[in-house]
Order: sequence, then structure tokens, then C-alpha cells
Amino acid sequence: MQFEIIAQDKKTKARIFKFKTKSGTIKTPFFMPVATKATGKFYDSNDMKKIKVKAIIANALLLSLEPSAAVIKSLGGIHRFMNFKGIIFTDSGGFQMYSEHLFLGVNENGIRFRNPFTGQRILCTPEKDMQIQLDIGSDVAMCLDDMPLYPAKKERLIQSVKRTIAWAIRCKRYHDKHNNINQLLFGIVQGGTDNSLRKICAKKLSTLKFPGYAIGGLAIGEPENLMWQATKVTLKHIPEKTPKYLMGLGKPYQLLKAISLGIDIFDSRYPTKTARHNQVFTFSDSTLKLQRKIYKDDKNPIDKTCNCPVCQNYSRAYLHHLIKIKEPNVKRLLSLHNLYFYQCLMEKAQESIEENKFHKLLEESKQWN
Amino acid sequence: MQFEIIAQDKKTKARIFKFKTKSGTIKTPFFMPVATKATGKFYDSNDMKKIKVKAIIANALLLSLEPSAAVIKSLGGIHRFMNFKGIIFTDSGGFQMYSEHLFLGVNENGIRFRNPFTGQRILCTPEKDMQIQLDIGSDVAMCLDDMPLYPAKKERLIQSVKRTIAWAIRCKRYHDKHNNINQLLFGIVQGGTDNSLRKICAKKLSTLKFPGYAIGGLAIGEPENLMWQATKVTLKHIPEKTPKYLMGLGKPYQLLKAISLGIDIFDSRYPTKTARHNQVFTFSDSTLKLQRKIYKDDKNPIDKTCNCPVCQNYSRAYLHHLIKIKEPNVKRLLSLHNLYFYQCLMEKAQESIEENKFHKLLEESKQWN
Repeated sequence: MQFEIIAQDKKTKARIFKFKTKSGTIKTPFFMPVATKATGKFYDSNDMKKIKVKAIIANALLLSLEPSAAVIKSLGGIHRFMNFKGIIFTDSGGFQMYSEHLFLGVNENGIRFRNPFTGQRILCTPEKDMQIQLDIGSDVAMCLDDMPLYPAKKERLIQSVKRTIAWAIRCKRYHDKHNNINQLLFGIVQGGTDNSLRKICAKKLSTLKFPGYAIGGLAIGEPENLMWQATKVTLKHIPEKTPKYLMGLGKPYQLLKAISLGIDIFDSRYPTKTARHNQVFTFSDSTLKLQRKIYKDDKNPIDKTCNCPVCQNYSRAYLHHLIKIKEPNVKRLLSLHNLYFYQCLMEKAQESIEENKFHKLLEESKQWN
Repeated sequence: MQFEIIAQDKKTKARIFKFKTKSGTIKTPFFMPVATKATGKFYDSNDMKKIKVKAIIANALLLSLEPSAAVIKSLGGIHRFMNFKGIIFTDSGGFQMYSEHLFLGVNENGIRFRNPFTGQRILCTPEKDMQIQLDIGSDVAMCLDDMPLYPAKKERLIQSVKRTIAWAIRCKRYHDKHNNINQLLFGIVQGGTDNSLRKICAKKLSTLKFPGYAIGGLAIGEPENLMWQATKVTLKHIPEKTPKYLMGLGKPYQLLKAISLGIDIFDSRYPTKTARHNQVFTFSDSTLKLQRKIYKDDKNPIDKTCNCPVCQNYSRAYLHHLIKIKEPNVKRLLSLHNLYFYQCLMEKAQESIEENKFHKLLEESKQWN
């Protein structure tokens, strides 16, 4: 994979490069809305076109349960299935070890899950997981990783790192052999908040020469300073000239802070989850809680400076009304606004890196915390 | 109000005329999606633009409770409030006598309701109701009517007709005096399925010279043959050269049958309610239940002949998947498709009236029953 830096911030490690995939090329840093089951929650692919979304992340394991990798393949792959023409990442399923109603157990072979649709038990091995992601046809596949919950004992973290490395080797071997669709495969570094384990995992995965690296197992409840420490240690031991993806992050300030450390790619439920709780981000007035009575007769859009389809069409008063009457579609409207805000935030990050003003944007972004 | 027939079917009473309001002119017959609380259920005004919706009906009473007529007025009226530029009818609130959690009682003065947002008791009089509808700024206001449940005893029907007439007189008087926004006021004929009462109510309201007439209190559970009988009797006794609105109807066949009797205007929850239960209408394959397993890998859109934003973007297989994973947005997508179908059905009705083929369309429409 070619790796060509377009711009590099002078004061931080923030950078811009062109990220190339079979579905197109986009500039980093970028943020991916979560489309776990090949759809946004409360919104659809057609909506995504209107809010500048260029890349999303779906979940291979969950899609293999419903509608199944075979169905998606027979329908021409995930892009056609969900009618999204941008870049699609698929996460492997390691994260679903968090899911009480799916996860059954884990050993060296792989992860055992229960299919909630059929009741059937399934074993997800690195090889099977690679085949699922190839069948689904995403642009970027993720290695199957063994993700410990937080907090985890040292012993569990050691086991997780060993397995994550062993599985990464198996994933890479299988993927190299069967990848006939020009799909990229990213490695995932585990190790919790243990610096030495993060180092071991990062160094080992680096030898496998993945076209990109993700940092997994963070933003799951650990203290924020430990998260940054683990991020820094990991970044130190993976090749600089590769795309870096910090999985599951986060808040606006966290995104910019991570960019300053050298992270390029993000995904998070945060903007849509907050939207579903009626909280919206603005460049004009920081964050707003639209259920508050003060918005009852507020003629203004959420953000006067925003060009999203929600700000172009509706007032705060109207959105407040939809919240009051519990209209489900308001969750969609506020999600679209917040996702558009995140896309604009990434554009602003790119502009500020190009203009060497990134530190100013980083400082400003504290207002949304 | 000018009343100019554009086309008249030769075999039935189906007709086309231009219906003029302060927000524009549209051709009859037309169907209004229900936007009770100034929004579609699961979809918004911006969606409506894309599915040919030209007129909707909201509810004055419910909007007076939340956000209040004063708020809507201060925000520039309902069209600006909800950002819908088409024609807006407002129903008065008589129908909410059906609502157990709102309705408290009724007497000659008006209807007593409980405001579920504040717990407050309110008395809705004909005069107050007219002022609410003027403040809201709809294009067409409806008289406050006293609507009996079905089945009702003769005594209750007599009382309902007496009150509906008395209130219509009070509504008209108040409206004539205070209408400075060029709003139209429609009378509503009650009388249940009692022919003599329908006749009395229709004849009396006709003397008040409303610019349009609605038939209320039907499609609420009575046998269909009685509904048609009551419709026919009512139509016989209201002036032919006025817009006729059959409230709350209905299924595709029922709409066409009503048009054949001389009805011009409709509203109903039916297309969106069925959509929320995963049933969709097509011109190509009659009705489909998309939760059925046969659609799991069906690459086709809902209807190959349909230009709605759902058929242009998604396959039956994808929509089936959204149903399986219980994604709330599928209710929006299927609602949009069904509403588009209804708009197309009305266009087909107009075309077939113009081409004197209406009886054929009426016959064909039985497939959706």
C-alpha cells in the first residue's frame, strides 16, 4: 500500500494522507458512523449521502448471523446490499465478547457465540471470520481479536495478547491466500492498559506487515489518562507510515487529542447515542439539550452555521416539540445532525492541519466535553 | 369559493376539480397522510417532499395541548412550524372523544378533555376550537363535532346530530367573524349509520353554506355496507358542487369506491399503519408481507414500477433484513413507500377519470383488499 503524507502538523503528530481502498480514496483523519448491522440506527444509507459520510463500519459476526454472509454475497456484497457507495470497514466480532446474549466462551480455536435468531451455537475461528469478511466484501477487514473486559487481571491480559497475536497470524495467512477482492486487512493491538503488553503486541503485529493497524480494547471504561498512555505506547511500536485506527472513540475533544498523537481513523456510537438522548453538538453554541423548556419557542435551527438537512429544515422549537410528543423520528433527525457535525469536525481538523492551526482547534474542542 | 369541474366520469360520480386554498391549488381526488401532531409518524416533512404529498391533516386539539396554538402562531403558523409548504387541514378534536386518556365528558357547551402534559382539565368549545385553528393557521379548518362511538343507541345519535348542528352554527358564526387568514371551514355531517339522521344533519348543514363538507363518524367499525349507505344518503343531501371529504377512509379499494360515489378528499392512517406492520402495496404484485422468509434474498425493489425513494434505493431482501433486526427506521421506509403508492393511486384515479376508464381502475383495486 502506498502511503503518502499530504500534510503534517508541526506542533503535534497530526497528519493528513490519502487512504486508498477498492471503493475509493478519502483523506484522513476521518470518522466512521457505526452501521453494525448494515444500517444506521434510526437512519439509512440514503440519509448518509446527505450528511457527508464517506466511510462506515459494520460488524462481520453480526451480519453472518442475520442475514448471513451467503445472502450478502449473493446480493452482490455489502455495498449493494445496503446501497452505500463509500468505504465500508467490517469489525471481526471480537468486540461481541462484550455481548452477554451472544458470547458463550473463548479458547485457542476461536470464540463461541449463540446465534440469537436460531439458538444455534457457533464457533468463530480466525479463518471463518476472514471468509465471512471476504464474502461480505467490505473494503477493510479487521483481524479477529480476543478482547478482555475492563478491568482485567494481568493473567487475562497476557492470554488476550497471546491469542490476539496467534489469531492475527492465522487471519493474515488465510487472508493473503483467499483475498481476491483487493480487501485490506488491519491488525488489532490488544493489551489493555498494560504498557509492556501493548508494546509486545504492537511489535509482534508490526512484523506481520499489515496495511493498517487498529488499537482495540480501549474506551471501554478505563480512566482516560490510562487510555492515552496505552495509545501512546502502542503508536510508538507500530510503523508510523501506516493508517492508525483507534477503535470506539469518542467525544469531539478525544478525537482531536488522538489525532494530535497520530491517530487517523475513528468510529464511535457517541454522536448517535447522545442524539438519541436529545443532546446535539454545535459550532455556534457548544452542546444543547433540546428537551429543555427554553427551546419551546426557539425559532433558530440547532446551529445557524450548519448546512445539515436538519438545520436547513427545522427549528429548535420544532425538534423540542417532537421530543415532547415522543416522535421516534426525532432520534433520526438529531443523529443526522450530530453525525454531520462529526464530519465537519474532521474537515476542520484537516483544514487546521494544512494551515498549521491544529493546536487551536484542539483547544477549542474542549467546549464539547 | 369557485367550483369548476375539470372532468366527470361518465359511468360513476367520480370527478376532478381544482381545490383552491391559501397555500395553493391541487386537483381532486386527493389523499392526505395523517400528521396529527404536526409530523408524520416515523417520517418528517422533508420526507413528504419526496413522496408527492400535497396535503396533510393535523389535529388542532392535540396541537393546542403541545406545543400550544400560541407557540405555533408565534413561530409563524403550522406551515413554517413543521416546514411543510403544501395544504394543511386541521381536524377539530371531536374525534378525540375516542381517546380514553384525553376524553372526560361532553355537554352542550363543548367537550371536556384532560391535558396529558399538565394534568389540567380543559373545555373545548366551538368558539375556542375555531380560534385555535385560526391561530395554527391551517388552510382548512373543521367544525367541532360530537362524534358518537360505534355502536351507538338512536338516542345518542340524535343527541350527536343536534349538538353537531348547534356547534356548526356556532363555529361558522365565530369563523366568519374572525377569519382574517382566508382559511376555509368545512362542516362535518354526523348521524352514524342512521339514514334519517344523516339526512337531517346533511340538509341542515347545507343551509349554512360551508365551502366544503366532511362525512364524519364512519369507518369506525360499522359493517362496510352500512358505511356506503350512510355515505350515499349524506351525499344526496349536501350540495354537489362542493368538495366532499370522507374522514378516516381507508383501503385502496374503499378510496376508489368512495370516489365513484362523488367523494373528493381522504385521510387515513391505513397506509402507514399497515407499513408499520411490514405490509406494502404494489402495482406490480398486489400486497406483500415483507417479514416473510421468501424475501430474504429477493434482489427486487418492493415494486419494480415504483419511483419512490425506497424502491429506488433498497431491495426487498434489505428491507426484510431491517425487519428481522427490528431496526425502527424500516417503519419509516415502508411508510414512505405506502404513502407514495397512495399518491400514485390518486394520480391513476385522476387519469382514469379523464380517460373515462375509472370503472376499470375501481375493479383492479380489489386486488389490494
